Amino acid sequence: MKNDFLRPSQAQLKKWAGLNDTAARRGEGIFPAEGVKVVAEMFRAAWPVNALLVLPDKIKYWEKAIAAKPDDVPVYQLSEAQWKKVSQDKEPEGIMALASLPPQLSWAEAIKKGSGNALLIYEVNNPANLGALLRSAHWFGFTNIVLSTKSVDCTNPKTIRASMGSIFYLTISGNIDLMAALPEIKKTYFVIGSTARQGVVPRSTGKRTALLLGSESHGLPEKMLAFADEQWTIPGNDRADSLSLPQAAAILMYECTKK
Amino acid sequence: MKNDFLRPSQAQLKKWAGLNDTAARRGEGIFPAEGVKVVAEMFRAAWPVNALLVLPDKIKYWEKAIAAKPDDVPVYQLSEAQWKKVSQDKEPEGIMALASLPPQLSWAEAIKKGSGNALLIYEVNNPANLGALLRSAHWFGFTNIVLSTKSVDCTNPKTIRASMGSIFYLTISGNIDLMAALPEIKKTYFVIGSTARQGVVPRSTGKRTALLLGSESHGLPEKMLAFADEQWTIPGNDRADSLSLPQAAAILMYECTKK
Repeated sequence: MKNDFLRPSQAQLKKWAGLNDTAARRGEGIFPAEGVKVVAEMFRAAWPVNALLVLPDKIKYWEKAIAAKPDDVPVYQLSEAQWKKVSQDKEPEGIMALASLPPQLSWAEAIKKGSGNALLIYEVNNPANLGALLRSAHWFGFTNIVLSTKSVDCTNPKTIRASMGSIFYLTISGNIDLMAALPEIKKTYFVIGSTARQGVVPRSTGKRTALLLGSESHGLPEKMLAFADEQWTIPGNDRADSLSLPQAAAILMYECTKK
Repeated sequence: MKNDFLRPSQAQLKKWAGLNDTAARRGEGIFPAEGVKVVAEMFRAAWPVNALLVLPDKIKYWEKAIAAKPDDVPVYQLSEAQWKKVSQDKEPEGIMALASLPPQLSWAEAIKKGSGNALLIYEVNNPANLGALLRSAHWFGFTNIVLSTKSVDCTNPKTIRASMGSIFYLTISGNIDLMAALPEIKKTYFVIGSTARQGVVPRSTGKRTALLLGSESHGLPEKMLAFADEQWTIPGNDRADSLSLPQAAAILMYECTKK
């Protein structure tokens, strides 16, 4: 690896450090995608990327990943102190991409892409949980993701990290009024609402399914649940609190796609 | 709530701040259990506790939880600055218990307790993942937990936090040479090994089951997998990386306990 990387300007560093903020990411049209695995998936998915940032001392971690880089993507090398300002990672692997934001799709446009199942996410606000949901969605072929208003942004750095690069393979529409969209969604999908206590046991449906998931703290509003074709509850110890959202969601996706 | 709480000494604060360290927890025989939910579960399970620490400004969060406190448990009130030294939590709810360490059980003693399924955990080293596993185990009735050598300690503060208090309902034996224990375990349990690629599809067994889970990065060693009665793999998109450990484990526990 030749030492021919660019050095960032103060203005660039300031801009990149600000990308933790959702509005800043939208303004710049880019989001930081950090870590060897995430960057490797980004290249594999041929996702558009503006630049790569690296920490020279960590070359043993990222040397392989960077080899897949398209020729026209510039690489900047940062000092440890500069890295700390732009990175969210306590133990950085020393590689970060500045990836282009996913296109903003309307729900109707998103439906047309692919024939997979859909995940309808209502007011989930823990970014790591959203990342975990995306990772499972990619595994189980829930390729359309619909995020309600008041959900965390899908390019939040913690979401990207927990998604392990799954985000680059999904079609995501954000900031959707889910209650208003549900009648239209029901025309295309069999809608299953997840609820902690009152639903039926999950089972194979054999249908194109949209799985509706509520927030970690409050679940789904009753009127939204009532709109689902079926309500599902995972049996368990009812003296225990509950399953956590990413685990419950993984089980439901698993059931939906079971042969 | 009367303002009759104790004030900690410097020596106490220093001791409590050190409890992030596994050896220190063992030495003192206590572990910090932080957060309203965790403390409430600890009281509900009648778990032995040495003391409670509170942050007076956060009384609206913990007022209800503390009402369940046994009379003989002392309560110390800490300043914000003192709290920062003992807490792991970025957004503290202002309540922490100093709980007694679980009894160190041998594997043979642990088996005798209860009739539930077991989780055999091999070299899992992410504390939040272990906490998530314990939470799911509690939900699905995997009441015996066996932690291998080189696994993270089950009283790690991040584990306690992610377990949401499930740890208080489980029988946990730690630091076990799993390979050596497996022949004995197989006499009592039907052993299922989890593997990312080569196993059969999960199914109900109708047997008392021990589910064997490998580390996040390396899975299970081949010789350990070969020892299992069955190897299970969750079907999915094989171009995707994999499911994350807590999600995969939740699906397998769900299948094991399905009626």
